[in-house]
Amino acid sequence: MTQPKITAVGSVGLDTVTTPAGKRTDMLGGSVIHFAVSASFQAKVGIVGIVGDDFPHEHIAFLKKRGIDVAGLEIVPGGKTFRWAGSYLKDLNAADTHCTALNVFATFAPKLPAAYATAPVLFLANIHPGLQLHVIGKMSKKCYRICDTMNLWIRETPHELRKVFRKVHIAILNDGEARLFTGAQNLILAGRKMLDFGLEYCVIKKGEHGSMAFGRNGFFAAVPAYPVEHVVDPTGAGDSFAGGFAGFIAKTGDTSPAGIREALRFGAVMGSFNVADFSCDAFRRLTSSDVRHRVAQFEKMIGVL
Amino acid sequence: MTQPKITAVGSVGLDTVTTPAGKRTDMLGGSVIHFAVSASFQAKVGIVGIVGDDFPHEHIAFLKKRGIDVAGLEIVPGGKTFRWAGSYLKDLNAADTHCTALNVFATFAPKLPAAYATAPVLFLANIHPGLQLHVIGKMSKKCYRICDTMNLWIRETPHELRKVFRKVHIAILNDGEARLFTGAQNLILAGRKMLDFGLEYCVIKKGEHGSMAFGRNGFFAAVPAYPVEHVVDPTGAGDSFAGGFAGFIAKTGDTSPAGIREALRFGAVMGSFNVADFSCDAFRRLTSSDVRHRVAQFEKMIGVL
Repeated sequence: MTQPKITAVGSVGLDTVTTPAGKRTDMLGGSVIHFAVSASFQAKVGIVGIVGDDFPHEHIAFLKKRGIDVAGLEIVPGGKTFRWAGSYLKDLNAADTHCTALNVFATFAPKLPAAYATAPVLFLANIHPGLQLHVIGKMSKKCYRICDTMNLWIRETPHELRKVFRKVHIAILNDGEARLFTGAQNLILAGRKMLDFGLEYCVIKKGEHGSMAFGRNGFFAAVPAYPVEHVVDPTGAGDSFAGGFAGFIAKTGDTSPAGIREALRFGAVMGSFNVADFSCDAFRRLTSSDVRHRVAQFEKMIGVL
Repeated sequence: MTQPKITAVGSVGLDTVTTPAGKRTDMLGGSVIHFAVSASFQAKVGIVGIVGDDFPHEHIAFLKKRGIDVAGLEIVPGGKTFRWAGSYLKDLNAADTHCTALNVFATFAPKLPAAYATAPVLFLANIHPGLQLHVIGKMSKKCYRICDTMNLWIRETPHELRKVFRKVHIAILNDGEARLFTGAQNLILAGRKMLDFGLEYCVIKKGEHGSMAFGRNGFFAAVPAYPVEHVVDPTGAGDSFAGGFAGFIAKTGDTSPAGIREALRFGAVMGSFNVADFSCDAFRRLTSSDVRHRVAQFEKMIGVL
């Protein structure tokens, strides 16, 4: 096994999703899954997560087929996998959660295989900030650290979340989370305020409206979303965005302002693939060449030469 | 008097606006005013509008100082100028209208000075589509025609509005209007559907989320908004956007896909200046060199080399 370029920690689950395009039951899901499948088109990812022994083996086979290292995926004998059910019937940008059954995820204590600890990039998907801090402590101090979070932790554990922000290079939030965390309604102000925690960059995702990045010395970048006419299932779009973004950084090692701009474009493109089908299914048919082709097309669309 | 490069038709009014930054009474306003002041940094504009003799002379002096031709501004003796009052206290993206007093604007019958009829660009700001059609009939057939509209006409006079769209090269709508007119929730789909009316391009404005343009053969462009940390008064932002956009087209004559992309960037920049102060006040302090400087800075921010 080659060493992962990205160690990624987060939830692994089985999702039941209803959208205007239909309903699907117990599909492959979870933040670290969407992230890893998306990132795998640019870099080798090792995932850290937990499932029960009801987790279908075909999902593990799919992850392996994408070159993803699953040595960090703990399988609990007799345990039940995390399940989430939700719908997007009123608004494709916001899920209505019907049911969250944490199951074995409630006992998640991330265990890193030795080869993961020295990966050059760490991605902390949305999990309890206490666990994010624990994982940071297990990784090489040299790794480039990127984290996601969610409104739950902003409300419930802001103190620990601030500690996470102080220890990562990049925080990725969506627009609502950035407003909630900083108290600033204006997103430009919110993005700038995030930098006060010592972040190198803050990335704000705005769904169909694209993304922005803020950095030191007034650095600002904005990238629209890749246009998608027919959204089938938005679940995991943000994690797929993060996968494209972090995948580019892991592939190139480029965290300069120009690199961050290009990483945002890979994020936009991977998000657009993700929403075109249920679960990660759009990625099953995709090649790295398809990704490069769409990025080139996107760069033409937005006038980047 | 040199001939205008842009003939622009729309409302001229006195606005009373309340925003989190304060309240101002009877300020210079109206769609064609915001458009013309913004466009005047790139091209000579001749305006067609109507006011009462209560319209302060200092406003006319300001327009003239900006090089705007006011020969088409009808002043009705004894008449009262159109007045609008609104606030943006809950949401800076959506005005609450408190009062609309059409006054002389209710009798508006656009009269074009002879020199206006051969201007190479026509901008039809938001007025009754019947009046828009009337003005199109008075202009040289060779002129490049750009129109705006509003939800009122989409609901009340869709048939006449469709006629307008069939006769213009570019329609500029905001996101809500494009959704309302086409019935498509997905904005990409809405933009594409607009082209069915024979438009060369459709531009969709998304406020703080930027703008998109759609054209034939699958042409798509997307530009974020220029980041503004402190919005003072969003009134006229859309018209200022259109002024930057049409001003660029009038200045360069470039309506190629690359030209449209660059025009969107000028639109974004002029919108950002507009919202930084009440009324058109930010433009009073501005030079063409300030505009070029911010466009260059914006192009760096969004990665356009």
